[in-house]
Amino acid sequence: MLTDIEIAQNCSMQPIRDVAAKAGLLEDELEYYGKYKAKISDDAWKRLKDKPDGKLILVTAINPTPAGEGKTTTTVGLGQALDKMGKSSIIALREPSLGPVFGVKGGAAGGGYAQVVPMEDINLHFTGDMHAIGAANNLLCAMIDNHLQQGNELQIDPRRIVFTRVVDMNDRALRNIVVGMGGPMSGVPREDHYMITVASEVMAILCLATSLSDLKKRCGDILVAYRYDGSPVFARDLKADGAMTALLKDALKPNLVQTLTGSPCLMHGGPFANIAHGCNSISATRMALKLADYTVTEAGFGADLGAEKFFDIKCRKAGLHPDCVVLVATIRALKYNGGVAKADLGTENLEALKAGSVNLQKHIENIGKYHVPVVVAINRFASDTDAEIEYLRTLCHDMGARYALSEVFAKGADGGMELAQMVIEEADSGKAAFSPLYPDEMPLREKIETVAKEIYGADGVSYSPAAEKSIDAITKLGYGNLPVCIAKTQYSLSDDAAKLGRPTGFTVNVRTVRVSAGAGFVVCETGAIMTMPGLPKKPAAFNIDVDEEGRITGLF
Amino acid sequence: MLTDIEIAQNCSMQPIRDVAAKAGLLEDELEYYGKYKAKISDDAWKRLKDKPDGKLILVTAINPTPAGEGKTTTTVGLGQALDKMGKSSIIALREPSLGPVFGVKGGAAGGGYAQVVPMEDINLHFTGDMHAIGAANNLLCAMIDNHLQQGNELQIDPRRIVFTRVVDMNDRALRNIVVGMGGPMSGVPREDHYMITVASEVMAILCLATSLSDLKKRCGDILVAYRYDGSPVFARDLKADGAMTALLKDALKPNLVQTLTGSPCLMHGGPFANIAHGCNSISATRMALKLADYTVTEAGFGADLGAEKFFDIKCRKAGLHPDCVVLVATIRALKYNGGVAKADLGTENLEALKAGSVNLQKHIENIGKYHVPVVVAINRFASDTDAEIEYLRTLCHDMGARYALSEVFAKGADGGMELAQMVIEEADSGKAAFSPLYPDEMPLREKIETVAKEIYGADGVSYSPAAEKSIDAITKLGYGNLPVCIAKTQYSLSDDAAKLGRPTGFTVNVRTVRVSAGAGFVVCETGAIMTMPGLPKKPAAFNIDVDEEGRITGLF
Repeated sequence: MLTDIEIAQNCSMQPIRDVAAKAGLLEDELEYYGKYKAKISDDAWKRLKDKPDGKLILVTAINPTPAGEGKTTTTVGLGQALDKMGKSSIIALREPSLGPVFGVKGGAAGGGYAQVVPMEDINLHFTGDMHAIGAANNLLCAMIDNHLQQGNELQIDPRRIVFTRVVDMNDRALRNIVVGMGGPMSGVPREDHYMITVASEVMAILCLATSLSDLKKRCGDILVAYRYDGSPVFARDLKADGAMTALLKDALKPNLVQTLTGSPCLMHGGPFANIAHGCNSISATRMALKLADYTVTEAGFGADLGAEKFFDIKCRKAGLHPDCVVLVATIRALKYNGGVAKADLGTENLEALKAGSVNLQKHIENIGKYHVPVVVAINRFASDTDAEIEYLRTLCHDMGARYALSEVFAKGADGGMELAQMVIEEADSGKAAFSPLYPDEMPLREKIETVAKEIYGADGVSYSPAAEKSIDAITKLGYGNLPVCIAKTQYSLSDDAAKLGRPTGFTVNVRTVRVSAGAGFVVCETGAIMTMPGLPKKPAAFNIDVDEEGRITGLF
Repeated sequence: MLTDIEIAQNCSMQPIRDVAAKAGLLEDELEYYGKYKAKISDDAWKRLKDKPDGKLILVTAINPTPAGEGKTTTTVGLGQALDKMGKSSIIALREPSLGPVFGVKGGAAGGGYAQVVPMEDINLHFTGDMHAIGAANNLLCAMIDNHLQQGNELQIDPRRIVFTRVVDMNDRALRNIVVGMGGPMSGVPREDHYMITVASEVMAILCLATSLSDLKKRCGDILVAYRYDGSPVFARDLKADGAMTALLKDALKPNLVQTLTGSPCLMHGGPFANIAHGCNSISATRMALKLADYTVTEAGFGADLGAEKFFDIKCRKAGLHPDCVVLVATIRALKYNGGVAKADLGTENLEALKAGSVNLQKHIENIGKYHVPVVVAINRFASDTDAEIEYLRTLCHDMGARYALSEVFAKGADGGMELAQMVIEEADSGKAAFSPLYPDEMPLREKIETVAKEIYGADGVSYSPAAEKSIDAITKLGYGNLPVCIAKTQYSLSDDAAKLGRPTGFTVNVRTVRVSAGAGFVVCETGAIMTMPGLPKKPAAFNIDVDEEGRITGLF
């Protein structure tokens, strides 16, 4: 079989104006970035905003193996299948980060015959959104340090600056740094940290903002530091909000690209699904809902992280009502959850499959708590045996879940027709009656405990002394009504990556709590969460090259 | 009078496809970035490369005041005037950096009625070139630190890593930092430094590369560190060159925009004129020469820095033969060079004007050493009195220099007709017989001394012990045949900003010498050169804002 990039490069793309026309956009509403990418101007939203919404379908997954379970591939393939059925449909995805592209994971625009193109552009600079977010973030940081340098009128405590610099790169040496060295002309020495851009609050803000004025308000609301007297300092106190918004104004517009079969894809925003909320932008999703009868979107990591945040943060904030959930399961991940070592996942093992299926069962139950119907998509890998596929069908049947085999990686749209048909039936059934898990007014500790018990299956929650103190301080500052955004390992329903399957009898340990006041949620970090990945011994960058004709190789 | 941004926003721009057509580009050779910006694909170069070149005109300046002397404004206005005369002409400019935009200087796309548009886009992210350069640079840095982390097979001495991180921001707190803190999982602790992106070798490489394969070779040639045994380590030893080239492949394509009057402008690359060579890209300049009968370009800072590097680095490397130089002088800068304090520059002072004219005289003599005819452009400011203008005409006349009053800031093309006519006459005269100041094979010390004596007017050069050692080491490594790129204050012909006019009896003090092996020159730092500016007490960012319609205010 061809590699992903070979398949993508062999695809003969439609001019993006044709894709836009098919999606119901006017040519004047497009801002081209080359022939195959466009941003959608605000005029489109003004024209469409009073139209009724189409159906909203979320693709999520069980707890994954480190290689991932093909959630994006399934989302793209489902979009291609709906399009092939003649349905008015759009997919709404997240943008890839350069970090994983040059690190271990490679590209993030689907795989096999279910991809979004132009693959290389999307995985490199795309339309510059990541860079704009980085620049806006780092402008605020430069203005914080400049404020210290210029006399510190606001009396910022340099030990309590909570807003950090970002770069869209896996660069572990920047996790913990000391800035401002070299004497009085070169800043005030202090400890600082870099995050990867996709983990930043500015990224979350871009994804949650509903207009330029909302974006500016949120930028101004960012809590950047505390004064010596303990009171908070916001980005607007540093007069950074206007300039940040100027840097972000084009990034706020959704990007239009296409699948391998020419169906439309809005790809916009790419927040991490742990310390941020892991979903593409509200502006893209609500645009898709106006344009298409069926919008298929995804949320990061497994359903305990991505889907929970999609429901409790994105849907809550944007007033969205999802109509169906697709839960992606793989034979590999179920066996992994059943205790099989990574190296042995290619070997048939029905017993482990059964043992791991408790993880699938728990996620099905969880989605039920939001009152949205669920379809299990069995994402076929080449190593899966027919016996395993058949056995998984039986297991799903026994759980009372609808299920479909998805072979979109190998077969494109044709591999997703059964799934697409089932999704349409469920989305159109009127069964969905979405409500979030907890109300706004529930106190923060109760919110955390509700997610931990109901979704993760924990017995309870323990807090570090620092977390206890933070929760009280954040509540006192008036942020107690915000939803919680729990950062947790994606490999387990618990906060311990080693606890596979459906762990019970565990406590979730909340280490730190802080408010993303601009984004509008309270981040709770559990376990050892990294906001800046590192490169592996042999990074993907080693293999990436470009020939004299400009053709890129080695992206996968 | 309206502000620059108001004038720019009132301009009704031509669709960029019309500007391209006027310039002789085919629609298929464009890659659109919105309606008013485009990149030019390699196909255009393939089609045009065998055409004869048009005339090349360089705009440079005398030693400036801290506010600058309107070199870009004069370049743009000259382009507008040539266009109004019905001449086939293109201007080739550098791209602005975000640092000055949010710092003290504001935008960098001309001023008044001589501007390049879309002004806001150009001054913010434009087509993403700066971001691409930053990403390529920082990928290499991440790969260096990752190499240390993963066992340091190449035996890199962490104390002798010479390649540093960059950000396109004025952020003095990043000048001197310590990275890799926080224990063994988070890198190897070492001292590091950030430069502003426009000061980076990768920027210089992009501007000097003539093809994708040349770009890749140059990326691989970057000398990043020394081993414990003192031998050099290159970017290609870290296998970073292919991935860097992939990140830069679109950035290598020249950008097309337009002046306020719809004439074509190639704006591409923006290296500093001290530690880099201060000129727009070779790819843009040679494209312009194929498209137009007259190409007007500029070089950074005063002629002692920008023009010297334009001649001795850019023209040497690209085989360019400039036909005419425009030397921009202002009444303000001449009075400043004549000893008037900044606050008093608005007051008429013929004596100081005369005293400062020795600076102009020296630059005229210097340009003569390259055998290119020169025209003095007196760039009129509102505060200039008629008596001062007339007196400067007399001074120019006495020096035997051709001169024209340029009022393009206030009057656009109409204010540049006299200058344009004179430039055409000189460029067409056949007087030019360009040759660089020194041959490749001259030893490095002699090259430095030649520039110091011939151009700066120094008695000689002194070297720090470190510089002496570096020159020997660099020569031994085989880089002795490269041109030198001298970093020096722009305010004086000497290396001391306080020595105005035409200083004599001074020595140039070379502090450090290092090789930019990928760019292909040897950087000599004199005095106290900053590669990372800081923000002022009231940065321009305070005033930048954007309204709900997306209109940006406060950029100037």
